[in-house]
Amino acid sequence: MGSIVALAGQVGGAKLAEGLYRMRGSGLSVIANTGDDYEHLGLMFSPDIDTLLYTLSGIAAHDSGWEPEHESHAVSDMLRLLGGPTRPILGDRSLAAPILRTEGLRADRSLTQVTLGLARNLGIEARVLPMSNDPVRTYVATEEGSVTFQDYFMELGCEPRVTGFQYAGAADARISDEVLDALHAEDLEAVIICPANPYHVIRPILEIEGMAALLRKRGAPVIAVSPIVGGRALKGSAGKIMLELGREVSARSVAMEYLRLIDGFVMDHEDEALAEGIAASGMSVLTARTIMRSLEDRVTLAATVLEFAATVRRRKLEDSEI
Amino acid sequence: MGSIVALAGQVGGAKLAEGLYRMRGSGLSVIANTGDDYEHLGLMFSPDIDTLLYTLSGIAAHDSGWEPEHESHAVSDMLRLLGGPTRPILGDRSLAAPILRTEGLRADRSLTQVTLGLARNLGIEARVLPMSNDPVRTYVATEEGSVTFQDYFMELGCEPRVTGFQYAGAADARISDEVLDALHAEDLEAVIICPANPYHVIRPILEIEGMAALLRKRGAPVIAVSPIVGGRALKGSAGKIMLELGREVSARSVAMEYLRLIDGFVMDHEDEALAEGIAASGMSVLTARTIMRSLEDRVTLAATVLEFAATVRRRKLEDSEI
Repeated sequence: MGSIVALAGQVGGAKLAEGLYRMRGSGLSVIANTGDDYEHLGLMFSPDIDTLLYTLSGIAAHDSGWEPEHESHAVSDMLRLLGGPTRPILGDRSLAAPILRTEGLRADRSLTQVTLGLARNLGIEARVLPMSNDPVRTYVATEEGSVTFQDYFMELGCEPRVTGFQYAGAADARISDEVLDALHAEDLEAVIICPANPYHVIRPILEIEGMAALLRKRGAPVIAVSPIVGGRALKGSAGKIMLELGREVSARSVAMEYLRLIDGFVMDHEDEALAEGIAASGMSVLTARTIMRSLEDRVTLAATVLEFAATVRRRKLEDSEI
Repeated sequence: MGSIVALAGQVGGAKLAEGLYRMRGSGLSVIANTGDDYEHLGLMFSPDIDTLLYTLSGIAAHDSGWEPEHESHAVSDMLRLLGGPTRPILGDRSLAAPILRTEGLRADRSLTQVTLGLARNLGIEARVLPMSNDPVRTYVATEEGSVTFQDYFMELGCEPRVTGFQYAGAADARISDEVLDALHAEDLEAVIICPANPYHVIRPILEIEGMAALLRKRGAPVIAVSPIVGGRALKGSAGKIMLELGREVSARSVAMEYLRLIDGFVMDHEDEALAEGIAASGMSVLTARTIMRSLEDRVTLAATVLEFAATVRRRKLEDSEI
């Protein structure tokens, strides 16, 4: 079996990454979005990396997904007592990775080295790779000004109307050697874009200088899975943002977001009616059960997506032989 | 009523400081030892300052004294899971002050500003003042080499035989303006050296360039309270260290440690037999109940010490009038 590269972030993306990991183990590399990383209280938070670490190691809380199970809030309570910032801080267990990350970065280790170390210590055999060691920050342009995604989400509660996105630093960021290795692997079988917000999870990865070109140049098929089902975002603010950007809230908008990048698109059975229109744009389309409630759901969807990728890959080969 | 300055650190020192605080409120300034401060996991720990903050604000755990009550260890558990350093880290609540301190120092606030801010937020009316804003590190010289007090205590379990102490940085450290103000206050009534290890709690304060001279120059009496009762340290390693330094484990050794600095010495009734000998060295001596189990004990000892200071002060005045 060949190797797989997944692009991921957020809880939904991590869920499919877990399914792929259960199928392929050490054959999986996950490129994690770092555009939503932020510094708070002097600590470096990487929400998408940590969600992946908790999910792939099996310690993520069942309900929230982005934090370890059995989370508590003693540090936060004490910070409040000491007059610390009112902005909420993560729970106790969720602070451990940022503390070690901050220490590692200050000691001049790269974000990739730090992340691989944490993953190894958690017993994760897949490679969790930050999209770059260089800082990229996603800014949400709103009618009230441009703010980081963290501020949009935490301070503003996703309230202001969104008019666009900027990915500061992306044009100057270098793809890390580890990401290059994963994408240049001779046995690369497929690149899977996991279901996550296209604007602030997947796009920042694609905006890294050279990343989109590299994905297109690889022979392996690129397959995206829709985070939108039946006109609603499965989680988070993707639906609201789509609407404000003047787009239809649908799997079709997600597919068009990845036009000329992906070879195949997977969306929910519920959106069957959109299949023909999307296929007309030149990509293969598959409908499947995309809602992942249990671990079994994650593995089943992963298997479906990998099988679809194999089909698309064969079709590509046949096309190129013609 | 005039103002009081206390020199303090450790749990015993904080207990008497609390008694003085209950007597004098905002009239008290506590100079805290920072010689045992250390950096771990990129965070700045100031154990003596934090013990004072928790004790004076009434949130210190009854048993341990140096940490807030209801302490938990979720961050520590998670750090272990993530392969963080094996050296134990403080509990969850105990991390909040170091997190805010580290952030403040990195933002170029002084240790004094940070500490006063935390004390104010905890509702403490007394002034908790680091002995200096400049770093001073206490090294324990042992037969196995010189180590920081933290390493001696945490890594080596106070095992190696102690041959001496060094106070790195003390000669270059500046007394902070806030400490100068407290010691130059016109209404200064007494300076109280709280019961704490003379070698790594009180001595580092006295080693700051100019501090001992300043204490001697003030008109106010300097009174020390013994941390040794009946040949044993009330807490910690003071007894063991005294023995290894070739000194008698007794209140007398403590008094001699402060010779030519203090005007009065308070020790336990149990050590009554030593009083005459110590008084012969030229200081006033008082015996009292010095073991502080309850808040009432702390207040009672504080009242006794302040009354003794007033007597010593009158005696000094009479002597100078002769």
